[in-house]
Amino acid sequence: MKETYIKELQQIQPNNPVLIEGLPGLGLVGKIAMRYLIKQLKAQKIAYLYSPHFPYFVLVNKKGNVRLLRGTFYYWKNPKEDSNDLILFTGDSQSQTIEGQYEIAARMLDYAEKNHVHTIATIGGYRMEAKDKPKVFVAATSQEVISKTVQAGASLSASGSPIVGTAGLILGLSKFKKIDAICLLGETRGYLPDPLAAKSVLEILKNTFNFDVELSGLNEEISRAEAMVTRLQAIEEKRVLQAEETKKQDEKKTTYIS
Amino acid sequence: MKETYIKELQQIQPNNPVLIEGLPGLGLVGKIAMRYLIKQLKAQKIAYLYSPHFPYFVLVNKKGNVRLLRGTFYYWKNPKEDSNDLILFTGDSQSQTIEGQYEIAARMLDYAEKNHVHTIATIGGYRMEAKDKPKVFVAATSQEVISKTVQAGASLSASGSPIVGTAGLILGLSKFKKIDAICLLGETRGYLPDPLAAKSVLEILKNTFNFDVELSGLNEEISRAEAMVTRLQAIEEKRVLQAEETKKQDEKKTTYIS
Amino acid sequence: MKETYIKELQQIQPNNPVLIEGLPGLGLVGKIAMRYLIKQLKAQKIAYLYSPHFPYFVLVNKKGNVRLLRGTFYYWKNPKEDSNDLILFTGDSQSQTIEGQYEIAARMLDYAEKNHVHTIATIGGYRMEAKDKPKVFVAATSQEVISKTVQAGASLSASGSPIVGTAGLILGLSKFKKIDAICLLGETRGYLPDPLAAKSVLEILKNTFNFDVELSGLNEEISRAEAMVTRLQAIEEKRVLQAEETKKQDEKKTTYIS
Amino acid sequence: MKETYIKELQQIQPNNPVLIEGLPGLGLVGKIAMRYLIKQLKAQKIAYLYSPHFPYFVLVNKKGNVRLLRGTFYYWKNPKEDSNDLILFTGDSQSQTIEGQYEIAARMLDYAEKNHVHTIATIGGYRMEAKDKPKVFVAATSQEVISKTVQAGASLSASGSPIVGTAGLILGLSKFKKIDAICLLGETRGYLPDPLAAKSVLEILKNTFNFDVELSGLNEEISRAEAMVTRLQAIEEKRVLQAEETKKQDEKKTTYIS
Repeated sequence: MKETYIKELQQIQPNNPVLIEGLPGLGLVGKIAMRYLIKQLKAQKIAYLYSPHFPYFVLVNKKGNVRLLRGTFYYWKNPKEDSNDLILFTGDSQSQTIEGQYEIAARMLDYAEKNHVHTIATIGGYRMEAKDKPKVFVAATSQEVISKTVQAGASLSASGSPIVGTAGLILGLSKFKKIDAICLLGETRGYLPDPLAAKSVLEILKNTFNFDVELSGLNEEISRAEAMVTRLQAIEEKRVLQAEETKKQDEKKTTYIS
Repeated sequence: MKETYIKELQQIQPNNPVLIEGLPGLGLVGKIAMRYLIKQLKAQKIAYLYSPHFPYFVLVNKKGNVRLLRGTFYYWKNPKEDSNDLILFTGDSQSQTIEGQYEIAARMLDYAEKNHVHTIATIGGYRMEAKDKPKVFVAATSQEVISKTVQAGASLSASGSPIVGTAGLILGLSKFKKIDAICLLGETRGYLPDPLAAKSVLEILKNTFNFDVELSGLNEEISRAEAMVTRLQAIEEKRVLQAEETKKQDEKKTTYIS
Repeated sequence: MKETYIKELQQIQPNNPVLIEGLPGLGLVGKIAMRYLIKQLKAQKIAYLYSPHFPYFVLVNKKGNVRLLRGTFYYWKNPKEDSNDLILFTGDSQSQTIEGQYEIAARMLDYAEKNHVHTIATIGGYRMEAKDKPKVFVAATSQEVISKTVQAGASLSASGSPIVGTAGLILGLSKFKKIDAICLLGETRGYLPDPLAAKSVLEILKNTFNFDVELSGLNEEISRAEAMVTRLQAIEEKRVLQAEETKKQDEKKTTYIS
Repeated sequence: MKETYIKELQQIQPNNPVLIEGLPGLGLVGKIAMRYLIKQLKAQKIAYLYSPHFPYFVLVNKKGNVRLLRGTFYYWKNPKEDSNDLILFTGDSQSQTIEGQYEIAARMLDYAEKNHVHTIATIGGYRMEAKDKPKVFVAATSQEVISKTVQAGASLSASGSPIVGTAGLILGLSKFKKIDAICLLGETRGYLPDPLAAKSVLEILKNTFNFDVELSGLNEEISRAEAMVTRLQAIEEKRVLQAEETKKQDEKKTTYIS
């Protein structure tokens, strides 16, 4: 394998398809959103993306079987008429090299073009302090898609802010094809998996592209994540208190000596 | 995108053209000079340079629109007869890989050759302590261009000094084409954007290549930069004083103990 | 040399061949196992693998002769009828680049396919605290090979654990050929060469693929390795004791002062 | 420039030619030896080697002229009959990437083959504590060339020692051509330019390949280098004494307190 390539498992005839991408990144927002969407919609596996720019290890599954790191494309036929079918993409890892980042995004766009995708949505996280309801920021290649998501509740990304990795490069490279692309970034503290940010992004997505999916299934994962954050904050507070106490003791000694 | 490539937006028929290049680097001298020149001359966008060797992120603009990192070529028709038209180049970033540095400079030279450019000028910064009037150092591929800039007020670069990045490699690679190339380096402290160094370089350039451009428009930016330096120096002096005070206190304690 | 390539020294007509691979890695388990197997079976050199992704130095031998870093394939004709001939592979180093890791594994699979190899076994180490009898973990590309090694005494690899480097990528890439592949990882502390882990892996291998090899020849090397570990543990314990003593002394001083 | 390439300035018809290579490395032994040989023999420039794997800067000369980093081949016609003409190679830098290291050595071998070179000698440094007369270690691709240099006074390289960079890879890759290759490593402390080590290597070389060159011209540079070492050692000794003094003072304080 000298280059990134896509191995198709089955051909599809999608109706008005939108491609949604989410890879591991800040707060795992993209990965969590895609994993949930694929499971909830019972989407079908249609292709793998392999690349020599992924990390050089393989993964073992429960039965002891082994596989390369890869990305996977899934297909979901929208039961609503005159609506968007979905092609969903997620994977194990981002590219480990700069050139690989460009190559993987380019191959994904080739595949999208071949399947007559007119719009691609990419998902990521945006580092922020916590809030009850995380905002979702949008950036895109055309004003029209931006308006649609803003109507669905998204906020405009700050000017000058970079979008790193596959979620960003797909937008940058999509202009060379006749494909619109949009990136939705969920606010997240970023250092822990953040299903709440993922849910916020999915809410915007389903309203923008008009597909039905029940999101309440994420609530349990959200509760667990919040409990974890509370626990870590308690530990951190205790650590800070102890550090202050130690510092006071040290100052007492110093004063005594001088 | 597997290689650096140039996407032409419009064809030009330049008269006796000179290409001027300035990318981000020390003190942002090249970038500031080019940005000013392009704006002041109202130069027209004629081509983009894309590369998989640029960093792997995209930028968001004020309207939420997204674009790849890139370089841009601009064209300015000189109203004077028997004079030099200008092709101006600037961009977001230098290459992130060694091979990319060589590839980007080579592609730029191909484009210059195609447009019958006879001379290329590259702009950068040269690290020095501050002076009222920063010197401009020159290095070039032919003695003739060196003489012209020295007459215009430039000083000869010190022997053995390296010129790093695109500004240097264009000169090194230009010998394989029949194109002269010259590099102008403005003296700068380098750690802050330095419009004064940029202005000094532009003065040499306009006299060397005989084009008119009003440079006083940079004065306000220069004042702001100087105010910033003064502010940082005041902070630094205060920090040094405090460090000395702390040291004295520590010595008192030590003396007391021993 | 622009790419990894295999230089064949002689053609073979193997009977039902299995390829066994072991390169330097954790505890040198793979390298020790292969070196022993090659010597004990008096296997014949049949091909070299060279790569520009190996480190950029050469090695000097006892006579002052020099050679590139490389991998070497050996061939052993199994005297038992209706049994597996072996192709054995070991080498000086793993690839130093990500792309090289994929390229080398791919070239090895090409060579295996050409020689009608139906199964490949790769060998590595798995970091664990010491035990008398190290376990051997197995992961593979098909359930059938897994069963065979589990019957021979191997344990199933934990789900989600990565297998890094050539030993892993061969499994991942073997699916693109019609070749089964299996990886055996011997438990090892990992920071020293570990012949006991190598022996444990070889025991599983000979029972799985039904070839005879006397393994007691490794016992002396195992004793030496154990003596070395005991010596290092004694040094470490002494260091810890001294550190504790120093700490007590420091605390006495501190107590005195405050 | 996408690959390393050699630009020939003139064609030669060498008689029984030997290629000698010396690039910057430990103690600059190879570079100093080649620079001296080229000057002393008044060898003629015949070709440049350029590579996108060299560092990405250019160098300015005394007149302000600029050039790419490169290697240069020189030619010397041996006035003795039935003797070896020399092709000499030195340059500004080693490759900055692993693949580039292999590519540059391979291109040099192509050029050597084209010019009917039968033997290549590479020069480097070998880290050792100082002696009056540094040893020269030899490693080679054939026993015959080793014997010749050992007779000329060289010692056999220790088994297992690596030879890093171009000086080593040329030997490793020369086996794919019908060219013998030999590496001579002069003992050097390595942290300063070491003309004495360079002279020792040149003595072996002229006796091995039977060409006349006066080496006393290096003596002045050797004296200067020795004076520099003496000066640095004096500074180092003083620094050690002061550190010991400070430590004693500190211990006195500590003793006083406890």
